[in-house]
Amino acid sequence: MDRVLTLETINPNMIKIEYAVRGPIVERALQIEKELKNGDKKSFSEVVKCNIGDCHATGQRFITFVRQVTALATFPHLLKEKSFPEDTKSRAKDLLAACSGSSVGSYSHSLGLELVRKDVAKYIHQRDGIESNWENIFLACGATEAVKMLLEMISTTGRGSERAGVMIPIPQYPLYSATNSEYNNFQINYYLDESDNWSLSADELKRALTSVKGQCIPKAIVIINPGNPTGQVLPQKCMEDIIKFAVDNRLILIADEVYQQNVYQPDKYPWVSFKKVLFNMGPSYSGKLELASLMSCSKGYMGECGYRGGYCELLNFDPAVQAQLYKALSARLCPPLMGQVALEAIVNPPKPGEASYSLFVKERDDVLSALKDKADITYSALNSMPNMSCNPVQGAMYAFPRIHLPPKAIQEAK
Amino acid sequence: MDRVLTLETINPNMIKIEYAVRGPIVERALQIEKELKNGDKKSFSEVVKCNIGDCHATGQRFITFVRQVTALATFPHLLKEKSFPEDTKSRAKDLLAACSGSSVGSYSHSLGLELVRKDVAKYIHQRDGIESNWENIFLACGATEAVKMLLEMISTTGRGSERAGVMIPIPQYPLYSATNSEYNNFQINYYLDESDNWSLSADELKRALTSVKGQCIPKAIVIINPGNPTGQVLPQKCMEDIIKFAVDNRLILIADEVYQQNVYQPDKYPWVSFKKVLFNMGPSYSGKLELASLMSCSKGYMGECGYRGGYCELLNFDPAVQAQLYKALSARLCPPLMGQVALEAIVNPPKPGEASYSLFVKERDDVLSALKDKADITYSALNSMPNMSCNPVQGAMYAFPRIHLPPKAIQEAK
Repeated sequence: MDRVLTLETINPNMIKIEYAVRGPIVERALQIEKELKNGDKKSFSEVVKCNIGDCHATGQRFITFVRQVTALATFPHLLKEKSFPEDTKSRAKDLLAACSGSSVGSYSHSLGLELVRKDVAKYIHQRDGIESNWENIFLACGATEAVKMLLEMISTTGRGSERAGVMIPIPQYPLYSATNSEYNNFQINYYLDESDNWSLSADELKRALTSVKGQCIPKAIVIINPGNPTGQVLPQKCMEDIIKFAVDNRLILIADEVYQQNVYQPDKYPWVSFKKVLFNMGPSYSGKLELASLMSCSKGYMGECGYRGGYCELLNFDPAVQAQLYKALSARLCPPLMGQVALEAIVNPPKPGEASYSLFVKERDDVLSALKDKADITYSALNSMPNMSCNPVQGAMYAFPRIHLPPKAIQEAK
Repeated sequence: MDRVLTLETINPNMIKIEYAVRGPIVERALQIEKELKNGDKKSFSEVVKCNIGDCHATGQRFITFVRQVTALATFPHLLKEKSFPEDTKSRAKDLLAACSGSSVGSYSHSLGLELVRKDVAKYIHQRDGIESNWENIFLACGATEAVKMLLEMISTTGRGSERAGVMIPIPQYPLYSATNSEYNNFQINYYLDESDNWSLSADELKRALTSVKGQCIPKAIVIINPGNPTGQVLPQKCMEDIIKFAVDNRLILIADEVYQQNVYQPDKYPWVSFKKVLFNMGPSYSGKLELASLMSCSKGYMGECGYRGGYCELLNFDPAVQAQLYKALSARLCPPLMGQVALEAIVNPPKPGEASYSLFVKERDDVLSALKDKADITYSALNSMPNMSCNPVQGAMYAFPRIHLPPKAIQEAK
């Protein structure tokens, strides 16, 4: 068959995308799982997939409050049931009242339900002690959709040295390289310093930017904090350096802060939002940086990846640009309503005195403490292996060990 | 503030996007609604939004079976409840068993749960009497996401006459024009014939294609059947002509068939899938057309827009191209799990003898009969108005009336 679409005729940017997290190794793992199910004999009986932060897939339990609110919003007949606590019912009623036709089966506003956007703003305000304007918040199909829209908006659609440059960390989360390929952005690699617990220095950022001079139009820097896949929590001083660098070099800052609730030694390595650090630096900076901060239902103590809920807060964006972004988002109609419902339950959790409060606190703390234990075990186990070393996991859900190849192996490879 | 991102520096394709369905008129309607809520006095008391096919927002009730299955999958504690029929429980159990960690909070395979893709294939097989391969089906965040991915894949990223050409109907559903702008595809308009009930002729398709000769590389034709926003159901003969035209002119066919269950006079104007018509035309055609067919949870009798569930079936695509599309889809991780759950309930509805069957049939038929009544009322009302005429609404959920301007108004405008 002589086809219209071939590798020669389709979008060349699509071919350039690489996405190892879901690539051939995962396909092979799925195949092996099937072979085990079919009774094939192997030297192991189970496949443990660690390719992605898929919390519930690896045994983490859901938070009862989140699921009770979503179940009530799904099937309002349950509002009559005595087994559901009063506060889950009041949250669900508020959500249903905010939905057109009182149904999660209707479309929401294309940026998300006003109720949820306002409660996200309250969550941010409480977190940082700084006002947040709900109209600068848009909800998305996971933080992923927000990242894709931002990197698409940044694209110049130009070629050669006219391409938009986007600085990303190495090691990185491959969504960033994949999306830069998709929109033909120029990837500018800056390297995290393994010897300094995956920190990054202004010198390295300068080096990276200087090295691509004339090859692209640098427009944005992506920071993942807590780090994916490196597990560090950035010190405040380092964040200030990044902000200065971004302002001095006219870059917008995309702050991937989806692991903000996965912090395992908060006394020693506390997590602070880029927004808070920016405001602490005073008006000479706070009004000068275009900042986009991302958050998600998929991580933290809730780990609701499948709901595809997330938000992005924009700060200091040109209102005309923001309007263009919001218009582009409207063509995809709206983010998944159940993701919005889950997000509402997360940014507006049970309060002291409410019926679900004690169970919520217990479940949340159990998950976070189990994750901390796993972080410690992973760190110790990796460092106890010969020819292996690893930095402590301060946050997120990942360890990035170094394998020290024995001299004989290197010689053999040569 | 001297910003990095301005209308001069952002992606120019994004600025070109137009999306009237969610545009300034909707923003104004939302504002008026708020004013009414605040007690402002107006000559009306309610805003009825007819800008979009938002079923539940305009009073359509959900299907109990769909919501019971989704509630059970959300909160499995409910599996103990006697008030849920057995068949809803068995569907929910099957779905949970198909989810990693038995949780809808985990990611699925990036193309969707294998269980759901297989049941979609069965649904298509039963519908058309033609085998469907589940591996050619991918699930999406509504049919919208699938449309966007297809039109992105078709893009050449070239300029001027090197751009990919996409034929779309006029009147159209603005997702198509918006997405073509987003990916810089060249929009080729073909006109539906209002005087022949919004049908289309091979002559008009030829005219449209000839008129853009040398201006682009024509690659695809989009057909919306039943029509959005025109409400017609295409006769089989017309569909054969379209297929011949697409094959002769080397175009892939994107069949937007999301209204396949919204057909109001099935005896007189039956709906048939493009796949079935293609296979009926025999092997000289069935192996020669690259066909992508779209379906959604958002329309039909279920109208679950907020769940963002949908699928796309690919036929005759180059396996290497399909692999590229699937890779690109993997970067967005997976479609919303609750949309997948809703889709499963829809493609695998209660069967005769199952506990939910009679209620399901009653609710489904009530919705479809109410939609048919509304279609008839809309048709009669529009045609009874002076200087207004409208074709019958055979399918979908839209009427596209003609306003005959009085000669004096035309003179005044001159």
